[in-house]
Amino acid sequence: MSQTDIASRLGWVAVDWGTSNLRLWAMDADDGILARAESDLGLNKINDGGFETVLRDLVAGWLPDTLSDDNSISVIVCGMAGAKQGWCEAPYATVPARPETLAAGAVKPVLKQAGLDVHILPGLCQVDDPDVMRGEETQLVGFMADHPDFAGWVCLPGTHSKWARIANGTISGFRTYMSGEVFALLSQQSILRHSMQGADDAAAFENAIRHISVKPKELLHCLFGIRAGGLVSPDGQQAGAGAAILSGYVIGSEIADIMARLGRDESIALIGAGKLASLYRQALHVHDFDAEIIDAESATLGGLRRAHAALTKS
Amino acid sequence: MSQTDIASRLGWVAVDWGTSNLRLWAMDADDGILARAESDLGLNKINDGGFETVLRDLVAGWLPDTLSDDNSISVIVCGMAGAKQGWCEAPYATVPARPETLAAGAVKPVLKQAGLDVHILPGLCQVDDPDVMRGEETQLVGFMADHPDFAGWVCLPGTHSKWARIANGTISGFRTYMSGEVFALLSQQSILRHSMQGADDAAAFENAIRHISVKPKELLHCLFGIRAGGLVSPDGQQAGAGAAILSGYVIGSEIADIMARLGRDESIALIGAGKLASLYRQALHVHDFDAEIIDAESATLGGLRRAHAALTKS
Repeated sequence: MSQTDIASRLGWVAVDWGTSNLRLWAMDADDGILARAESDLGLNKINDGGFETVLRDLVAGWLPDTLSDDNSISVIVCGMAGAKQGWCEAPYATVPARPETLAAGAVKPVLKQAGLDVHILPGLCQVDDPDVMRGEETQLVGFMADHPDFAGWVCLPGTHSKWARIANGTISGFRTYMSGEVFALLSQQSILRHSMQGADDAAAFENAIRHISVKPKELLHCLFGIRAGGLVSPDGQQAGAGAAILSGYVIGSEIADIMARLGRDESIALIGAGKLASLYRQALHVHDFDAEIIDAESATLGGLRRAHAALTKS
Repeated sequence: MSQTDIASRLGWVAVDWGTSNLRLWAMDADDGILARAESDLGLNKINDGGFETVLRDLVAGWLPDTLSDDNSISVIVCGMAGAKQGWCEAPYATVPARPETLAAGAVKPVLKQAGLDVHILPGLCQVDDPDVMRGEETQLVGFMADHPDFAGWVCLPGTHSKWARIANGTISGFRTYMSGEVFALLSQQSILRHSMQGADDAAAFENAIRHISVKPKELLHCLFGIRAGGLVSPDGQQAGAGAAILSGYVIGSEIADIMARLGRDESIALIGAGKLASLYRQALHVHDFDAEIIDAESATLGGLRRAHAALTKS
């Protein structure tokens, strides 16, 4: 679509501004996607006051020429732009939280130039059993819009994977696990880096899931066993399966904790894509659970759409 | 003591050759210590064939002038010098193992020069529930020499902490935990590095020990809670206790696994020194256990003495 076409049809702009990158969507008045943009100018790379400039540069080609304070384009932003060290702090909403609570907590940064009407959505926090998220809550809202009757746990795998409990249109609580970061550190920087060669091994992954689910106290010992297994029996069954076993222990430890919290008749859904989402799904199969995989982009956009509707109605 | 005095009284040389450094002791004929030396020329810094040169340089000042093949000094070496990538491989002995088994597995590297009679002790391995150690087995032998009736678990805290089960003068099995390396990676390189400021906090450490003992599946979630706790309640009780809490979760996870394996009437002893040994002792107190702390150097030397006696008698 040409820039002129985008500009003539632009309804609003959706933004997911994370720690290491940001993604933007040009949306029409019916919430359809006109264009996408992305940049590596995440929170970590932006200095004082740079947020507005970065945003204006990225959306410049989408905007009509006639913008002013009275004729401005709404920009709905989720993610780290609302952190204390971000563009403009949007204090955490606390659980239990409903989608309208999150939209109501949006803040508007003071802008240097006219033509944009920026709303930054808050993250979510939990005081008892301390936990925080910024960005994932918007994906949860998007998921809830499409699954109004869902009751159970929604998982967002990642460096710090999040599991949120949802019922009756409310996020009642959530738990973050350091699984992704622990896997990365151990596989790249610990003594286990010597044992990471080899291809995927579904059986080894699933055995590790089962083992750590039954014997969760063994985690720090099982990790060393990945190294020792290669030394004790270099040609044994562990050879070449080190990465799969490590992944199984780490993801398995996380999922064992969720399984202990899962209520009767509760469902599980995964928001994500690619290999990581598949691994989580495979791990859930070991526990006889099937999980629907929801596309992360459509969940994010769904949440931003819902916030846009709430913020422009009010 | 002057070099002349050492040389005139030298009985044998004890060596603990580790991955990152080595320690040597000049011993008299009655197993008393005449002198000590140490070097950072551990396994990691030695190239092909360098072991003999490094050893000769370090003991040169201790040796009498009259050495020959018929009049040589015994050198008893434990540790990584016997690894596959070390000086001369001393294949692992397997558990269950007795001190005499370990001495019998010693190997003699071929030397370029006369005057030294070098014996390298084997490490210990466990095939079922794969695990390995090199060096710690000699400390265990030293401990057993002084505690012939001990029945229980001996802990050697460290980067990869080891717990060995000992009864009837036999090491029946052992377990390595990656606790030390996991603590180092998380405290220095993960997102938790932002939460490590502050002094020791015994209460926070002990609360973490208790928590993870009761809820071992929560480990990867509790770790993130150290970060989230500071964000949710910056002035709350967690402030300044991040390192103590992390240490409590990691050491506590390890000790919870041992507690589940501890037999009726079994004792616990710690071979180590300084802050780390004190933390393990404090963690054991939370479980109503008192552990004797054994000095690591005297355990190493005790094991090398016992090996020397066995090797020179035979």
